[in-house]
Amino acid sequence: MRAELKGIAASPGYALGRAWVLREAAVPQRQVRVSGQDKEEERMRLESSVREASRELQQVVLQLLRSKRSQEAEIFEGHLLLLEDDELIGRAAAKIEEEALTAESAMLEATEEVAAMIEALDDAYLLERAADIRDVGQRVIKKLLGEGGDSAMPEGEEPVVLIARDLAPSVTAGLDPKRVAGFVTAVGSETSHTSILARSLGLPAVVGTGEALLTIQSGQHVIVDALSGEVWIEPDEQLLAHYDDKKRQFVEQTKRLEAYLHRPTVTADGRKPELAANIGTVEEAVQARAAGAEGIGLFRTEFLFMNRDTLPSEDEQTEAYRAVMAAFPSGTSVIIRTLDIGGDKELLLLELPKEENPFLGVRAIRLCLQFPELFKTQLRAMLRASADGRLKIMFPMIATVQELRAAKALLEEAKNELRARGIPFRDPVEIGIMIEVPSAALMADRLAMEVDFLSIGTNDLVQYVMAADRMNPGVSELNQPLQPAVLRLIRHVIRSGREAGIHVGMCGEMAGNRYAVPILLGLGLQEFSMNAPGIVRVREQMSRLHAERLEAAANAVLELDSPDEIREYVEREILAAAETETI
Amino acid sequence: MRAELKGIAASPGYALGRAWVLREAAVPQRQVRVSGQDKEEERMRLESSVREASRELQQVVLQLLRSKRSQEAEIFEGHLLLLEDDELIGRAAAKIEEEALTAESAMLEATEEVAAMIEALDDAYLLERAADIRDVGQRVIKKLLGEGGDSAMPEGEEPVVLIARDLAPSVTAGLDPKRVAGFVTAVGSETSHTSILARSLGLPAVVGTGEALLTIQSGQHVIVDALSGEVWIEPDEQLLAHYDDKKRQFVEQTKRLEAYLHRPTVTADGRKPELAANIGTVEEAVQARAAGAEGIGLFRTEFLFMNRDTLPSEDEQTEAYRAVMAAFPSGTSVIIRTLDIGGDKELLLLELPKEENPFLGVRAIRLCLQFPELFKTQLRAMLRASADGRLKIMFPMIATVQELRAAKALLEEAKNELRARGIPFRDPVEIGIMIEVPSAALMADRLAMEVDFLSIGTNDLVQYVMAADRMNPGVSELNQPLQPAVLRLIRHVIRSGREAGIHVGMCGEMAGNRYAVPILLGLGLQEFSMNAPGIVRVREQMSRLHAERLEAAANAVLELDSPDEIREYVEREILAAAETETI
Repeated sequence: MRAELKGIAASPGYALGRAWVLREAAVPQRQVRVSGQDKEEERMRLESSVREASRELQQVVLQLLRSKRSQEAEIFEGHLLLLEDDELIGRAAAKIEEEALTAESAMLEATEEVAAMIEALDDAYLLERAADIRDVGQRVIKKLLGEGGDSAMPEGEEPVVLIARDLAPSVTAGLDPKRVAGFVTAVGSETSHTSILARSLGLPAVVGTGEALLTIQSGQHVIVDALSGEVWIEPDEQLLAHYDDKKRQFVEQTKRLEAYLHRPTVTADGRKPELAANIGTVEEAVQARAAGAEGIGLFRTEFLFMNRDTLPSEDEQTEAYRAVMAAFPSGTSVIIRTLDIGGDKELLLLELPKEENPFLGVRAIRLCLQFPELFKTQLRAMLRASADGRLKIMFPMIATVQELRAAKALLEEAKNELRARGIPFRDPVEIGIMIEVPSAALMADRLAMEVDFLSIGTNDLVQYVMAADRMNPGVSELNQPLQPAVLRLIRHVIRSGREAGIHVGMCGEMAGNRYAVPILLGLGLQEFSMNAPGIVRVREQMSRLHAERLEAAANAVLELDSPDEIREYVEREILAAAETETI
Repeated sequence: MRAELKGIAASPGYALGRAWVLREAAVPQRQVRVSGQDKEEERMRLESSVREASRELQQVVLQLLRSKRSQEAEIFEGHLLLLEDDELIGRAAAKIEEEALTAESAMLEATEEVAAMIEALDDAYLLERAADIRDVGQRVIKKLLGEGGDSAMPEGEEPVVLIARDLAPSVTAGLDPKRVAGFVTAVGSETSHTSILARSLGLPAVVGTGEALLTIQSGQHVIVDALSGEVWIEPDEQLLAHYDDKKRQFVEQTKRLEAYLHRPTVTADGRKPELAANIGTVEEAVQARAAGAEGIGLFRTEFLFMNRDTLPSEDEQTEAYRAVMAAFPSGTSVIIRTLDIGGDKELLLLELPKEENPFLGVRAIRLCLQFPELFKTQLRAMLRASADGRLKIMFPMIATVQELRAAKALLEEAKNELRARGIPFRDPVEIGIMIEVPSAALMADRLAMEVDFLSIGTNDLVQYVMAADRMNPGVSELNQPLQPAVLRLIRHVIRSGREAGIHVGMCGEMAGNRYAVPILLGLGLQEFSMNAPGIVRVREQMSRLHAERLEAAANAVLELDSPDEIREYVEREILAAAETETI
């Protein structure tokens, strides 16, 4: 049997239930009023709908703040401001006055005009603002059409599978997670809003199925297989039974894994690799600890810089870094990465030239070395936060020994600036680099002599080693971490670190891959940093693996020719054995 | 003293002379005629100018065909067709009739309208067509304005330095190379039309100086330093004397090197590396032989596929491959690379999706494996041509053992198809791969077991190893072949080839780099393939180098940290010594 739709498995699990399809508000064709009497009525309808939408938004903000979802709350505070904005509401009112439109049509046209003006500026940050304007416009129009709030769910207690083209923050903010069995969206990727939200709520989600998803009708039965990315519509009894079973097993396994949540990580032969989390916000640090992380292997600092029009101050950054450390017991290792923008991540604040191949352009440390003041502000903030505990500084995208030395020189300047101000910091603070450019992997022996730790960033490393963009589906067959060429480089990096007597970790998706974990253990990797929800599974897997015996297996794997052969070997020689006995 | 302008040194040498600035035809503001009488006159002026332009173009075509510049001739045949095209000339005539314009204004507006329509389609191939339309339009307008043909040079015998925003084919085709001392253009790159032409004519050229170039007035004295990329305007006596001297030395050296044109390549200790050429057209094969190439290390087949709207047939390709081989004595090694498009090279014939990072996308062998019929047609043509001599087939962008096997399987199919048709070919034909993806370099030992030769493509290899786009000036510091990480990989590739008992060559720009040559000799590289004009210089350099003694030096270099240190080491320890004694 064939799945009806296939998308990206963005948050693991199974959802069975009735579809609740969220459609964008349908405004009838451009409507013109008839008499002068109507004009006054339309104006009043608009005003009262704006007031209603405002009250609703205030509720949403309060609710989010109570659940400590302050980032989301900020988005809706922005929406509230838009409702007071003359550009948007004033424009709609003028259309009622001058063009004799109904309030719905006036609001729709005003929204589209303002959004289109902003979009014409062709700036990634403003594109998001245009989406916010549409979100607000839709909210007012729904009020005018008499449609309920976004959070109006179908009656009853039955769980629903939420289906939409995309889930706007205004939709997800009002959700009752207890009633939602899972999400499916037509657009999106593993890192889109829906995916992140689903993972943080622990709900299964499939994203990026394509527009065919919207043929589903509210009330139809659907099955969401968010391990394979498949979505089934109106399944038969047999399939339902099959998935009921799978879901039960998944829930059981999840429960069984919960036992590993706060256990120490120990392999069958007593090795103690560190299981850390990759995070992007302060909130995620708290979630990571709850999910069993023993530390932070990668804190991406980009969120501090994005979607704003001024640079974050040294104080603001210091607070954020301290807050991340505060989520863990004192003395926990927290690796903070300096700004990694450029490539797929744009930043409004710096006007950067458009590049033909952004992944091969001026990004991360290359950019920071061009903007030393921006870089040193961040370094000073990190140093200040380091006084509180074991903060480690990590430089991304290092390609050469010279770049590392230039970054270290700026760190020394930052230290001197703090010394001059009499501000304390941990000295020496531990510093390390990401190994994600092939040249850095090849030069790992030299680089290791100048740092305290190496962290292999497999997502980028794989795309450069294979010359295969990780965002390009046309080359996804090549872009696999289990490519033997990638494993050979990783072996060289781990060996180089060991010979220099420093710590080697990994902070790419590979660190949580069940086929990769035994190989990496066998190669001697010391720290595995991954998205927090994967940690317990890896901890449980490691408890069944015998690290020393894996050494030979890991080297045998490196003599194979393809990811398929490697997966097959690991499955046959390692995983199968580990199911029955401790290897 | 500071050079007045700085551009890209596109073809080496020095030019001293008076500037001859080619400006685009200046049409006065939109001109409207007065009476009905004029209309008839303008129509006739247009007709007679079109006829004049046509005759001129026919002369250009004939002249080019006589000098065997058939590719350029084709461009002007296209221009001739445009003059017969109702879309362009008919549109201009209509403007005279209906809008009461002068012939000049009518032609200018018609040209711009047609060119703009084509440009709006946003297709790389059509962009060139738009440039052709403007070129033809300018030719007719110049006739109308009574300006001479493009080839009208200043009177006298004095050499001139040709200066222009860009050199259209219509300009360069009419040039008398004996009167031209060099080219300088405001736009362009090393691979643009002007650069290629300059190199093939052996004229110094600097391109890409920026628009400031056009402040130069015809008749001003200029010095073009096409080794450093500098351009001097109205130099003083001292500078003139300095450059007179440099030019004399350059000419002497060129003459001295001529002695090495057709000598065998032998190092001081009797090794015989092969010096081959990288070429892109049949004409270049002839030029390469004249420039001293011992074979073809890389024949790029893209030109057969570009700027056309049907695919080249098997017969047409067979002819081209035979013609390249015919330029050399029978038995000469000629390596032909299968189609390498995608990345920076677009192809109109296949509608390929736009990629965010084209250098990391579906290009070269990845694309060919997706279009097996296109690929097999090319392979059959190569096989057929192989019956004539030592044609070798090379696959570009191989990243994995699987891709190589897939390509080989299609080659077997192509052989069987020829067998079924009773057509002879060389069997087994030698096959090889380019090593330009880091994964291929890392897996060179495995890949070497399945081919007859490896050829290191440094231009791409460097950009992937360093994660630095070779077209992006922002990362040019990283994109250097003398990066130690790159050299380490190259050592691994050469060793892998030697251990498998197969031939290892190089076909990137690095093979002709004076610092790289001694290192590559020391590492044991067997074939150096480069742009033909560099061959004699490398042959002369090799005659002074002792390959065996370079082994230790090459390995010492690989322990250094940066390209600067490596260049310095080579300069001090190898080149300086080789000037005075044979090392």
